[in-house]
Amino acid sequence: MSTPAPNEIAYDKIRAVEWENGRLKLIDQRILPDKFEHLYLDHLPESAKAITDMVVRGAPAIGVTAAYAVVLAARDWYKENPTRWQKAIQPDLELLAKARPTAVNLRWAVEHMRGLINAGIPGNPVMRLLSEAQRIHAEDIAANRRMGELGAALIEKDSGVLTHCNTGALATGGYGTALGVVRAGYAAKRIKHVFADETRPWLQGARLTAWELVQEGIPATLIADSAATWLMKQGKVAWVIVGADRIAANGDVANKIGTYMTAVAARYHKVKFMVVAPTSTVDMNTLDGSKIPIETRAEAEVLHFGGIRTAPEGAQAWNPAFDITPADLIDAIVTEKGVVTNPTRDKMLALMKK
Amino acid sequence: MSTPAPNEIAYDKIRAVEWENGRLKLIDQRILPDKFEHLYLDHLPESAKAITDMVVRGAPAIGVTAAYAVVLAARDWYKENPTRWQKAIQPDLELLAKARPTAVNLRWAVEHMRGLINAGIPGNPVMRLLSEAQRIHAEDIAANRRMGELGAALIEKDSGVLTHCNTGALATGGYGTALGVVRAGYAAKRIKHVFADETRPWLQGARLTAWELVQEGIPATLIADSAATWLMKQGKVAWVIVGADRIAANGDVANKIGTYMTAVAARYHKVKFMVVAPTSTVDMNTLDGSKIPIETRAEAEVLHFGGIRTAPEGAQAWNPAFDITPADLIDAIVTEKGVVTNPTRDKMLALMKK
Repeated sequence: MSTPAPNEIAYDKIRAVEWENGRLKLIDQRILPDKFEHLYLDHLPESAKAITDMVVRGAPAIGVTAAYAVVLAARDWYKENPTRWQKAIQPDLELLAKARPTAVNLRWAVEHMRGLINAGIPGNPVMRLLSEAQRIHAEDIAANRRMGELGAALIEKDSGVLTHCNTGALATGGYGTALGVVRAGYAAKRIKHVFADETRPWLQGARLTAWELVQEGIPATLIADSAATWLMKQGKVAWVIVGADRIAANGDVANKIGTYMTAVAARYHKVKFMVVAPTSTVDMNTLDGSKIPIETRAEAEVLHFGGIRTAPEGAQAWNPAFDITPADLIDAIVTEKGVVTNPTRDKMLALMKK
Repeated sequence: MSTPAPNEIAYDKIRAVEWENGRLKLIDQRILPDKFEHLYLDHLPESAKAITDMVVRGAPAIGVTAAYAVVLAARDWYKENPTRWQKAIQPDLELLAKARPTAVNLRWAVEHMRGLINAGIPGNPVMRLLSEAQRIHAEDIAANRRMGELGAALIEKDSGVLTHCNTGALATGGYGTALGVVRAGYAAKRIKHVFADETRPWLQGARLTAWELVQEGIPATLIADSAATWLMKQGKVAWVIVGADRIAANGDVANKIGTYMTAVAARYHKVKFMVVAPTSTVDMNTLDGSKIPIETRAEAEVLHFGGIRTAPEGAQAWNPAFDITPADLIDAIVTEKGVVTNPTRDKMLALMKK
C-alpha cells in the first residue's frame, strides 16, 4: 500500500490525536459527550499518564499518541544532552510502553520509534521523529479507509449491525476500524441501521460511539449491553462488527470486555462476527489468546456510574478491561492487507507475510 | 403447604412492603443504596403509580403491594358508598392490574382480591381484605423459604453462582426467590461466592442485590453485565440463578433484560441455569414466551443516569425491560410446590395440579 504524505491525508474532522504547534493535542475522552475539551501535552511522562487514565483510548489511537510522545521525549532529552540523548531516553520509552498492557499497538509504536532512534539520527532528531509519527498517523487513517471498503464488501445490502465499545475516529488516527466499516457500509447502503452497546463500565458506546454516529447522521440505537443477545434473537442484526486491542498468532482476539459476550451470542443466533484491525494490532509473538495479558482496572469503574457511586459501601467488583474471543467464533478478520475468513495460525501467517 | 398466621411469620429484616398503622409502607427502591427512605401510601391510584415508577419492583413484591393496595381502595370506596362499593372499586382494580404489563403476579393478586370482593363481603370489608393481603404476604415469604431449600439442594458444595437483577427481600414479600436460594445455599455451604450482574439500565444488581448481600455478609462480587460471559469462561460459575416475572405454560421465562444473555452464555459454557419463582408467577393461560407482553420502558433510562445525560443529544435507545428465556435453556424451575427439571408443558401442568 502506498502511503500519502501527511499533508495529503484526509484527516478526520474528529481528531482524537493531533500534533499542533509543537505539542501533542488530545481530545479528553473521559468527559465526552458532556464536555468537549482538549489536553495539550509537552512531555512523555504526562502523555503516558494520559494513556493510562484513558484521556485517549482505543488501540490505534494509543499507538499514534505514543509515536508523538516519543517525539516529545526526544526533544526533551536532546535539549538535556545532545550527545547521549539516545541512551537517556530509554527509561521514558519503557514507561510509555507500559502505560497500558493489553493493546499491542502501543508497544508496536514505541518499538518502531526506538528502532529509528537506536539506528542513529544525526543532530536534532525532532523533525525526523515527527515525520515518522505523522507517517504512522497517516498510515493508520489510510489503513482504516481501506478496511472500511474491505469490511463493507462482506455485508449484504440493507443490513442491521451491532457494534461494541468505540472503534471510530476517537479510537484511531481517524475514520475508525469497526466504525470505519460502519461508515463505509452506510455510505454504500449495505448498512441501514447500527445498534451500539453502551459498553459498561466506561460507556464508550453511549458516550463516544453514539456521539460519532449522531454527528455522521447514521441511524443508530443505543442498547444496554445485556440487551444485545435479545436483540439478535429479534433478527435485527446480520453482523457484529468490533475492533481489537491485540490479535494473537492463531487469530484469537483481545478486545473490550463484552466482545466475547457478543461473539457467543452471535454464534448461537447464526449472526456473523467481524473483527476490524490494522496489522499493527496483530502480534505474531503471542501464540494464542491465553497468552495476552488482560488489564484489570479499578473496581471503582464498576461501583460507580457516570461519576456517581451506585453500589453500596462494602461492595466489591471485578473489572477486567478486556476479554478474549477465540478464533473459532470469528467469521472474518479485516485488516488493511486483506480479509482472513475463519482465522487460523496458517492464514494469519500468510496475511502477515503479504 | 400449611400457611402460618401473619403474626407467626418470620418477616425479613429488609421489608420492601409493609402494612403499618393502616397505611401501605414501601421502601423507595429508586434511591437505594444512596438513601434509605419509605413512602407511605393511603390510596390505590398512588400505589399503582408507585408500581409503575418502580418505587417497588420485583414480581412477587409487586403482587404483595397490589394486594395491600386493594385494601386501601376498599376502605376508600366503602367510606364513599357502603352499599355499592364493590361495583365502584372495579375501575381502580383495572388501573392497578395495568400498572406494569409483564409480571403476572400483579394481575394474579388483583384477581385473587377481586374474587373475594365479588363473592361478597358483609359490612366493612377492610379487616377481611387486609387479612387476605397479609396471608398472601406471609405465603410469599414461606414459599421463598421453601424454594430456598429446594434450590440450594441442587447445588454442589462450595459452588460459585451468578445472579442477575434483584430477586431478594426487596423484590418479594421477604427472603427472596433466586436470592433466597443464594441465602439458603450460602448457609448450607453449597454456595461459597456470588457474582452479581449490575443489571443495566436500572442497576438492580449494583444498587439492590449488592446492598442485600453486603448486609448478609455473603461474599459477593459485582460485575458489568457484559463480563458475565467472560466470567463463565473462567470456570468460576456452576449455576446461574435468576427469578421470573412470568413463566408461560411451556416453561418459557420472562425475566429482567439480560437474563436471556446469561442463559445463552450458560449453555455455551455448560453452566447450569436455574429459575426460582413461586407458582403465582406461572401463567398457564400464556401458551409460550412469544405471547408474553414485554414492557418497553423510557429511552431515558438508557440515555441517562442519576438525572445526568450520558449519551449525546440526538441519540436514541431501545429499552426492553424484559426478555424471554426459552424452556430449552433452563435446567430447573424451582417453585414452592417442587422442582421442574428441563421444563415442558406436561411437566408444568403436573406441577400446577399439585
